[in-house]
Amino acid sequence: MQRQGQAVTALATKSLGGPLEPVTLERRELRTDDVSIRIEFAGICHSDIHTVRGDWGERRYPLVPGHEIVGIVDAVGDAVSRYKVGDRVGVGCFVNSCGECEACDSGEESYCFEGPIGTYGVVDRYSGNEYTQGGYATGIVVKERFVARIPEGLDPAAAAPLLCAGITTFSPLKHWGAGPGKRVAIVGVGGLGHVGVKIAAAMGAEVTAFSHSDSKKADALSFGAVRHVSTKDGLPESLCNYFDLIINTVSAELDVDAYLSLLRFNGTFVQLGLPAEPMVTRARSFTQKRTSISGSLVGGMRETQEMLDFCAAHSIGAEVEVIPASYANEAYERTMASDVRYRFVIDAQTL
Amino acid sequence: MQRQGQAVTALATKSLGGPLEPVTLERRELRTDDVSIRIEFAGICHSDIHTVRGDWGERRYPLVPGHEIVGIVDAVGDAVSRYKVGDRVGVGCFVNSCGECEACDSGEESYCFEGPIGTYGVVDRYSGNEYTQGGYATGIVVKERFVARIPEGLDPAAAAPLLCAGITTFSPLKHWGAGPGKRVAIVGVGGLGHVGVKIAAAMGAEVTAFSHSDSKKADALSFGAVRHVSTKDGLPESLCNYFDLIINTVSAELDVDAYLSLLRFNGTFVQLGLPAEPMVTRARSFTQKRTSISGSLVGGMRETQEMLDFCAAHSIGAEVEVIPASYANEAYERTMASDVRYRFVIDAQTL
Repeated sequence: MQRQGQAVTALATKSLGGPLEPVTLERRELRTDDVSIRIEFAGICHSDIHTVRGDWGERRYPLVPGHEIVGIVDAVGDAVSRYKVGDRVGVGCFVNSCGECEACDSGEESYCFEGPIGTYGVVDRYSGNEYTQGGYATGIVVKERFVARIPEGLDPAAAAPLLCAGITTFSPLKHWGAGPGKRVAIVGVGGLGHVGVKIAAAMGAEVTAFSHSDSKKADALSFGAVRHVSTKDGLPESLCNYFDLIINTVSAELDVDAYLSLLRFNGTFVQLGLPAEPMVTRARSFTQKRTSISGSLVGGMRETQEMLDFCAAHSIGAEVEVIPASYANEAYERTMASDVRYRFVIDAQTL
Repeated sequence: MQRQGQAVTALATKSLGGPLEPVTLERRELRTDDVSIRIEFAGICHSDIHTVRGDWGERRYPLVPGHEIVGIVDAVGDAVSRYKVGDRVGVGCFVNSCGECEACDSGEESYCFEGPIGTYGVVDRYSGNEYTQGGYATGIVVKERFVARIPEGLDPAAAAPLLCAGITTFSPLKHWGAGPGKRVAIVGVGGLGHVGVKIAAAMGAEVTAFSHSDSKKADALSFGAVRHVSTKDGLPESLCNYFDLIINTVSAELDVDAYLSLLRFNGTFVQLGLPAEPMVTRARSFTQKRTSISGSLVGGMRETQEMLDFCAAHSIGAEVEVIPASYANEAYERTMASDVRYRFVIDAQTL
């Protein structure tokens, strides 16, 4: 079917750093390869807050954040083959990419050599320079390639954060071989980290959770960690040369060399966040044990589907607090104060 | 056979930072698993000079440097099976290790979890706390495990530096898959780098050599590089996102982020030297292309033999200037002034 653009209700900031307010937004006409989604839930990610507050620069306004989106297909273009009306689907951090580079060719669109197109707040040069608007809304129209299926059995609210926090941790865990016999550390037990602990444990790895205080210890153990380390008194000597893989979900500056000392021979430290300060390391940290620092950026659509299927098979969802749209500004404050366990998710029916 | 300790002539420094002078040194009695070697050639490595000059701390004196050693077997212990009198063999940077850890088990003794025992200037706790003395000498006694065979066809003087410079570059090139279809950069065309260019080219990789000025351009191309970049004016934009692997042989501080920008998707920057200053990088350098920084430390005995066989098969030797022992102090000065193409090698017959 073809369809003209449709109006949806959304939460937007109307100026740099402004509050979230209801707006009416026109979604694009349905193209042949588009999927139209009636949104059920949209997670609140730290990066939404950074963007709204202008930490990463000014955008066009009004700006609708949200890239952890779950909903029900309500229309599909004529060329769409994988989805039909009534399917539950998800949309994550990207809605377009060049489609032609080596990364896109291998289904790793988040590493598109030309730069993937974010779900909100950027110009989509592959789509008539349309300005992208995110998932704090009642509906969205997205190219089929960037839509994933939410398997039966996944709670839709708990699934929403998987589209960002889930794939962002699943992808490096998979890439660096987390599994039976591997010792994995997840640094930070927040929105990303708590899902990372669950996924790494489900992959069969021995998981250690690191967080600032003991306040999340019980949770971390319940998510599947065999051990919790409170980092406020420094890192334990007993874990030197211990880990095969350390996934750092924390964006604050930390003593990278100290974490590298926890890696064993050939181990890897993977950075997910983007701290404002540079990372400072000694060459000796790399040479003595052939350890590595690397990074990872979300994940591609092939792997996003694999992650969702994996989470369904292992009954993994994010821990969420479902809120009405009217609570979003307060939820932002609480998220910045780390006062959430572990993800706020907006119920789009309240828009 | 068993044999009492024997005296050899050697070049030693008798005090911290003192000049190299001839001394007489007692080598240990021949044990059942020992190989006694009449040394033909010993290369002069930068690390010898750092050690002699006390840059890495004080040692016991007299101290005999040298870990690029080639010579002829003149006696073997009763349990030695791989070598016989008359064989040409080599000894590199290590002469012992715990022999029991995962690294030793896999033949990667340079990463011994307990720390490998250097060829000179350290206490060998696995050998009665003997103080190790290096290869600027007429003879040495080394455990069979840490002796490699010099294949027919390798010039012994040109082979000596392979025991350090050769394996130190071969190992990371092998580990990170240098070969046909791969684009490899070798940063620094000195003692290590010039051998690295030869080896990487022989492995079938497309090799680009980076050095400070154009003075080594013609040499680098003759060693097998397809391209030489003079870095004094910065790094060329045209090589952004180009390399699969960058091997940095330079110990001076450099702009690591700038080099990371030259890596393509999934590329790796490998640090070999140990700059005095920390390495400073931005997290974004890792996350956007899943690039890595790692390091490499020499290589194990299995791989050392593989490297020597590879070099013989591809007619690769170091470019050397063979000198008499009496020239060693002047050779040190010239090495520090980068006035050598590309390695000084002491002719042990002149001792």
